Amino acid sequence: MSLENTGSRTLMDYCPDIQVLDCTLRDGGLVNNFAFSDEFVKDLYQANIKAGVDYMEFGYKASKEIFDPKDFGKWKFCDEEDIRAIVGENDSPLKISIMADVGRCDYKKDIPAKKDSVVDLVRVATYIHQIPTAIEMIEDLKDKGYEVTVNIMAISKVNSDDLDAGLTLLARSRVDALYLVDSFGSFYPEQIAKLAQKYVDIANASGKIVGMHAHNNQQLAFANTIEACRYGVNLLDATVSGMGRGAGNCYLESILSFLKNPKYDVSAVIRFVEKHMLKLKEEGAVWGYDIPYLLTGILNSHPSTAIQFIKEGRHDYCKLMQELMDMD
Amino acid sequence: MSLENTGSRTLMDYCPDIQVLDCTLRDGGLVNNFAFSDEFVKDLYQANIKAGVDYMEFGYKASKEIFDPKDFGKWKFCDEEDIRAIVGENDSPLKISIMADVGRCDYKKDIPAKKDSVVDLVRVATYIHQIPTAIEMIEDLKDKGYEVTVNIMAISKVNSDDLDAGLTLLARSRVDALYLVDSFGSFYPEQIAKLAQKYVDIANASGKIVGMHAHNNQQLAFANTIEACRYGVNLLDATVSGMGRGAGNCYLESILSFLKNPKYDVSAVIRFVEKHMLKLKEEGAVWGYDIPYLLTGILNSHPSTAIQFIKEGRHDYCKLMQELMDMD
Repeated sequence: MSLENTGSRTLMDYCPDIQVLDCTLRDGGLVNNFAFSDEFVKDLYQANIKAGVDYMEFGYKASKEIFDPKDFGKWKFCDEEDIRAIVGENDSPLKISIMADVGRCDYKKDIPAKKDSVVDLVRVATYIHQIPTAIEMIEDLKDKGYEVTVNIMAISKVNSDDLDAGLTLLARSRVDALYLVDSFGSFYPEQIAKLAQKYVDIANASGKIVGMHAHNNQQLAFANTIEACRYGVNLLDATVSGMGRGAGNCYLESILSFLKNPKYDVSAVIRFVEKHMLKLKEEGAVWGYDIPYLLTGILNSHPSTAIQFIKEGRHDYCKLMQELMDMD
Repeated sequence: MSLENTGSRTLMDYCPDIQVLDCTLRDGGLVNNFAFSDEFVKDLYQANIKAGVDYMEFGYKASKEIFDPKDFGKWKFCDEEDIRAIVGENDSPLKISIMADVGRCDYKKDIPAKKDSVVDLVRVATYIHQIPTAIEMIEDLKDKGYEVTVNIMAISKVNSDDLDAGLTLLARSRVDALYLVDSFGSFYPEQIAKLAQKYVDIANASGKIVGMHAHNNQQLAFANTIEACRYGVNLLDATVSGMGRGAGNCYLESILSFLKNPKYDVSAVIRFVEKHMLKLKEEGAVWGYDIPYLLTGILNSHPSTAIQFIKEGRHDYCKLMQELMDMD
């Protein structure tokens, strides 16, 4: 996280300061309730190391008082011993991250000091109105010795003044990176360019970097990620085959192919896809671009309505469109 | 085609000079050998009228001496009476187009004078080395009274000097529009921006406009189409649910939602999708983003290798990657 931002650049540049974070287990876990086999997780860990990926996110650090462990796979909670069962002491260049949602975790109790954990990075996810609480979390996690980033979610529903105020507050904290997040997959590249510029200006002024987390509702997750990249965003989220809630995310396969850094090797990911991803789909995991997600993306709505629609096996897309417009 | 180019613009602009061409039957016909039911074609025609689409392409004007009509559906050949069976005299604002490949059609014989046809626009498709022949076709078709556009295919394999020379030749012809075509789905938006600028500069200087035809190998068909649009490209190809060869094209659903022109109504297309597109997929038509197409896109290869790979039910993606690199 010590890397400085280089400003606007072209895609043919070699940008060693760009890093990639694989969040397949975390955003993909929202698809299958975190029911990944240990073999899947071990192979993904090895694939990420071989592919030169910089960070691998294992899941959420969710509160066991709010969420019943019986209802979820273990990566909803990311117990230290579960991560160690996969990575040992993580004797590799791949860093480990977990995500903690403001208001849905017991970070004070559940997240130990860095010296007692193989986790390198804690990613705080917050809504705009929770930012003061997010900052309390950030300061606690920095005191404990972690790298810390922050995602402000659902900004397509936030007005510019509030976003500026939130970013300014966060810029004063000790957080290492601000994440630009397109929760509803509703932004076009031109809008991402403007937002990326705003985030990068604010972050750089305080020696921080900016990350990008995209959703694929309009098949723009990859395009928006590389657009952000042009404006100096340096920490790029992706998932294997785009696995993630609803329409999913930016494809790890695409972003590794796109980047010119020789440390990245997409073939390790392709091999993982060959072994695991078709099987996962055959077992019933459903994600990726589909008309209902396009409609929630266009209409700037939470994807939950589309997820429910697909679960019910409905295909009356026009009716869904009307329902979504009525919800606005 | 009398519309002038307005130069660079932002996505929030209202751009009445942007037109949309639906080429579902033509590029989609490459998926199912043009075996569309008459009901499908009639409903698509009505949907395009209701949606405010500007042009609908019915298929190819292919030579019956080169291609045996027994092997293809009728939209490979687009006989005048077949089009009229769908559109009558086409008493609608929707214009009709057909595509004619240089060297694969008998345009002199098979394409009548405009006064004897309901077709409005003939789109000539050419490789770079065929441009002099393309120009002969263009002049013949202009003499006959048609609007004429030209696609230069496979330009990701053409060097810049040759492309400049080809575009300059075409700019001197009477063609109405030059089409920027990403045949292999291998371009990133930043490259499309540069190419669009080049095409627009050359075309505008001769009072012509520029079109965009994208492929979705890297899930960039929509992103590349709207990127081109920002640089003054005014004629946008799309297909329903992206139906087209290999990874398919820009989604008509996406582009109509994106454009601000009140004449466009995406719900007519969504209704068509609901009725026809799921059925078509269930009947075995295969198109759309998949790993093999990503690989041909990344490696700037013709999609035919990937199409064959998928047809054979293969999933050894790593091997395909090696095979593609050996072909280069």
